[in-house]
Amino acid sequence: FRADRDKPRAHLTVVKQTPAEKLHQKNQFPALHWEHELGLAFTKNRMNYTNKFLVIPEMGDYFVYTQITFRGTTSECGDISQRKGQNKPDSIVVVITKVTDSYPEPSQLLTGTKSVCEISSNWFQPLYLGAMFSLQEGDKLMVNVSDISLVDYTKEDKTFFGAFLL
Amino acid sequence: FRADRDKPRAHLTVVKQTPAEKLHQKNQFPALHWEHELGLAFTKNRMNYTNKFLVIPEMGDYFVYTQITFRGTTSECGDISQRKGQNKPDSIVVVITKVTDSYPEPSQLLTGTKSVCEISSNWFQPLYLGAMFSLQEGDKLMVNVSDISLVDYTKEDKTFFGAFLL
Amino acid sequence: FRADRDKPRAHLTVVKQTPAEKLHQKNQFPALHWEHELGLAFTKNRMNYTNKFLVIPEMGDYFVYTQITFRGTTSECGDISQRKGQNKPDSIVVVITKVTDSYPEPSQLLTGTKSVCEISSNWFQPLYLGAMFSLQEGDKLMVNVSDISLVDYTKEDKTFFGAFLL
Ligand SMILES: [Mg+2]
Repeated sequence: FRADRDKPRAHLTVVKQTPAEKLHQKNQFPALHWEHELGLAFTKNRMNYTNKFLVIPEMGDYFVYTQITFRGTTSECGDISQRKGQNKPDSIVVVITKVTDSYPEPSQLLTGTKSVCEISSNWFQPLYLGAMFSLQEGDKLMVNVSDISLVDYTKEDKTFFGAFLL
Repeated sequence: FRADRDKPRAHLTVVKQTPAEKLHQKNQFPALHWEHELGLAFTKNRMNYTNKFLVIPEMGDYFVYTQITFRGTTSECGDISQRKGQNKPDSIVVVITKVTDSYPEPSQLLTGTKSVCEISSNWFQPLYLGAMFSLQEGDKLMVNVSDISLVDYTKEDKTFFGAFLL
Repeated sequence: FRADRDKPRAHLTVVKQTPAEKLHQKNQFPALHWEHELGLAFTKNRMNYTNKFLVIPEMGDYFVYTQITFRGTTSECGDISQRKGQNKPDSIVVVITKVTDSYPEPSQLLTGTKSVCEISSNWFQPLYLGAMFSLQEGDKLMVNVSDISLVDYTKEDKTFFGAFLL
């Protein structure tokens, strides 16, 4: 038996993103980096944040969640007639990805995906995800988004990422 | 005192749905069935999945969550002029329903409902729900959706259902 | 070590809102009040609900969540031509706000914000939020929304607010 207060936990909040390196793997969206100690953000009990990753310190079932607030100005989307017959709607995507050193391929734990074709030229909206996963010591979690330039990084309460051992 | 690792927990993931039986009760949306042991899916510690239901093995407060990703092609919705003056918008609905053997009526624990009338002819979007409920031994939980044919069943990380004892 | 079943927990559900007093602070959206003991709603283990606030009874990390279902009839939004060139889209906003007696300014823990400019004249949609926060004894949590008259108060499973000690 262990005290719940000693369990690994982290809540990370958005920061301004540095210009997206193009280093991310093919077929993978760019990863966000995060604030991990100021304001509402914290990590505790050996849950560490390093280089865009939350690192799981011990095996167990974790609840993992994120919200990304996106905003954009899609003038093309306001033009109804041009959209007609077009089969590729614009979209926003959030993925929580797990990387395991012992396994070559990253795996997607959670995905939120939404087509966006708003009437107004200035739109904004959140995508929220949360679920429980059985994780191993050393597993690393990151949040990938389809387009970093659409992420609202202005306020810590709008865009965040967290995990805690159950 | 009990070890948290021995608590009932389940995370279920989407599978291709068999053609919807029309057996579901009147005034109730059809229920989804789920993967419960492959990939990210698991059940443990006497939380059982059977016949579309998660069966609660002991009394307590549970966190229950689901995400359903819907996608559709609504050509009618793209035609603005036809929508004018129409009072019945198309919608997507997700319900987490509780069935208790000792009580005749199913009860709705969580509902997410959204009107959809997208400009683009191919739209997709998730509905997420999650909250805490006091449940009894033997309570059964299912996820009902307004239209099974709109559910994205292609990836386990897009459409899921879970519960764990707090 | 403590029994998990003795931890502070609350799940509150929507009720019809009394006409909005205009007493709320400048730069703050009006707060919702809630059902705390009937139907699915409950508070336990010294988590108290009073005057629109959940009052945190002891220091610790809490998971806090809310869903607000909004619905409206925005005829102006259906008129595409009028929206063209307009830079202020209509929006819906939910905020979970923390008030600490020892600190003068309320702080926003979670915000969900979405532009709404639907084609159909009758629209509805949920905003969901949930995350973990380190809270102190005596902290008070409320839910503020941009426009109380848009909140769907008809069913307890559509609009709710909860928190539990991890
Ligand atoms: Mg415990």
